[in-house]
Amino acid sequence: MRSSTRSAVDPFIVMDVMQAAAAAEAAGRHIIHMEVGQPGTGAPRGAVDALGQAMGQGPLGYTVALGLPALRARIARMYGDWYNVDLDPSRVVITPGSSGGFILAFTALFDTGDRVGIGAPGYPSYRQILKALALDPVDLPTSPENRYQPVPADFASMDLAGLMVASPANPTGTMLDRDAMAALVGACDAAGASFISDEIYHGIEYEKKAVTALEVTDDCYVINSFSKYFSMTGWRVGWMVVPEDHVRIVERIAQNLFICAPHASQIAALAAMDCDGELQANMDVYRANRALMLEGLAEAGFTDIAPPYGAFYVYADVSALTHDSRLLAAEILEKAGVAVTPGLDFDPARGLSTLRFSYARSTVDIAEGLARLKAFMAAR
Amino acid sequence: MRSSTRSAVDPFIVMDVMQAAAAAEAAGRHIIHMEVGQPGTGAPRGAVDALGQAMGQGPLGYTVALGLPALRARIARMYGDWYNVDLDPSRVVITPGSSGGFILAFTALFDTGDRVGIGAPGYPSYRQILKALALDPVDLPTSPENRYQPVPADFASMDLAGLMVASPANPTGTMLDRDAMAALVGACDAAGASFISDEIYHGIEYEKKAVTALEVTDDCYVINSFSKYFSMTGWRVGWMVVPEDHVRIVERIAQNLFICAPHASQIAALAAMDCDGELQANMDVYRANRALMLEGLAEAGFTDIAPPYGAFYVYADVSALTHDSRLLAAEILEKAGVAVTPGLDFDPARGLSTLRFSYARSTVDIAEGLARLKAFMAAR
Repeated sequence: MRSSTRSAVDPFIVMDVMQAAAAAEAAGRHIIHMEVGQPGTGAPRGAVDALGQAMGQGPLGYTVALGLPALRARIARMYGDWYNVDLDPSRVVITPGSSGGFILAFTALFDTGDRVGIGAPGYPSYRQILKALALDPVDLPTSPENRYQPVPADFASMDLAGLMVASPANPTGTMLDRDAMAALVGACDAAGASFISDEIYHGIEYEKKAVTALEVTDDCYVINSFSKYFSMTGWRVGWMVVPEDHVRIVERIAQNLFICAPHASQIAALAAMDCDGELQANMDVYRANRALMLEGLAEAGFTDIAPPYGAFYVYADVSALTHDSRLLAAEILEKAGVAVTPGLDFDPARGLSTLRFSYARSTVDIAEGLARLKAFMAAR
Repeated sequence: MRSSTRSAVDPFIVMDVMQAAAAAEAAGRHIIHMEVGQPGTGAPRGAVDALGQAMGQGPLGYTVALGLPALRARIARMYGDWYNVDLDPSRVVITPGSSGGFILAFTALFDTGDRVGIGAPGYPSYRQILKALALDPVDLPTSPENRYQPVPADFASMDLAGLMVASPANPTGTMLDRDAMAALVGACDAAGASFISDEIYHGIEYEKKAVTALEVTDDCYVINSFSKYFSMTGWRVGWMVVPEDHVRIVERIAQNLFICAPHASQIAALAAMDCDGELQANMDVYRANRALMLEGLAEAGFTDIAPPYGAFYVYADVSALTHDSRLLAAEILEKAGVAVTPGLDFDPARGLSTLRFSYARSTVDIAEGLARLKAFMAAR
């Protein structure tokens, strides 16, 4: 059977790393996982308990496409608590993870061949989802001076139909401050480009609160998820905030494409939003890990890094160490027993000179990983 | 903010019915729901228990994109048990519901503008998902003589890139026997069109076992779900069987579009497959309901129906009663307090002359609904 052109999406390089790490573990080696982009913790206890109760009380059939009203209202309230933004719950759409949000947003906003700007480096699936939908992703190479975030000059006169940004970003952990966000929103507005803000790492921030695009404009799509701060990756539930006059459009697409986000996950997510104690304990771990990383990576010799103000990644320029980060990552796995991600997934043009280190797992693992990296670099 | 052309999907007419029914209930009336397409039962007890245990044992993070290996293996085994088909588990892809399966299949197989045949009447979201992906759905008007299923003559020399069939079908409950399935597979093969078989209602069949396309060919996509027979609608978990050389293609698309199906739902689904007792008890209810429906609808005067060999629907031609099934449905809701679905969602060209009656809910409700329909028709 033939397959489509649009199905020719790129493989994840990180999958090769994960397979090599798994093979090493199967051969009896102990591997520290700095390649994985998800928390080592599960859903908060309160979320699990709430679902356990709900499962005993009746069938969890379809919810309406926009999601459980109580969850939409609770999320809207959070925008007041976190950002002092007054948000109408009717603008909140519950999605099957941020993945579902991307598909809904791109489908609602763009037509075949539309050019959509994405920062490079950036989350690899932006590019692949756009291609799978027959849209045209345009990599905007960002610079260390701009903290690896796009600026208006990067897409001036490019005739973009949309711009997708992420703050805190994967793979860099860098953030857009309010002025930088406003400049991008203004430039998109002037160019007639739709503005999409991926805020999946909000809540995981270290020195200052991340800025939501909703502080700057209502005329944008905001995508978020319960996967990161709320530690619910496998539950596939997230949300999107859309302009008031787009709610019906998104609702109809969601009815047809997804029917609804998983009911059980929506119940768990609602309860997770009141589990501050456990979630802040997770944050204490990330904070400790980050402090260890900043010190330990520098001591090991990875000194050229982006300022990681959020998320749980450090993105390092390793061009002084290698001409091919895939080879360096393989060497680190082989000799140090630490799995790290070469930059190619995030930046096809320049990723041969970068590595991403994740510190989402336990502090014990991070400390051990850093010790191994130091020894490896000292012997290199 | 502008919205895309592809986002202009049609609203569901049934939503209007459901809203009108909800409004009537809010006003204190008692409504019988024959419009709803989902079981009234929840996930089997064993599924809920398995998830309850798993939630206590560790984080439910991402699974691999193709799904839990144990679930893929268990599904493959089911093809042996149900159809005597020997299926390699590596060809089974776990999806976020059959909805996720449609998106994956259409993306893997078709490019912008490709024409994909769908039977009319049929599940409305086929058409809308195809449009949202910038593909071109081609309605194939089926005939009562062919049990509302497409036959090769319906798409001869139409230059289709693919054909999507469903057996048992929504909204008719009719099935393709092995010869009819083989004829369609052969015609597609000869025309170079990809063959996709929606088998979501398998297991809910009354007089003979439904035929899977895999009995006829390996060169097809089969889409199924835990929503119907396994009574897990809100859990958003299903599966797809693809040709061996398409597994990697689908895996990469799934990694990017969905990451994975909900982990919790996969665990529940695996356990549900060993809950025969409870699932067969559900079937006893459907069987009783169906017998009541066939007798009661005829007595009421809805005599022109398709033979409902599977699923839990009866599709009736009401052209002798109305020139607009939306008006008739509104009248039935208003005067009889029974919610039914006008045919327009399923067949845009001819649905003004049809109604769909669902018998997925309790037998008490079905009996009461039929009594009301008889009284309504007698007084009309």
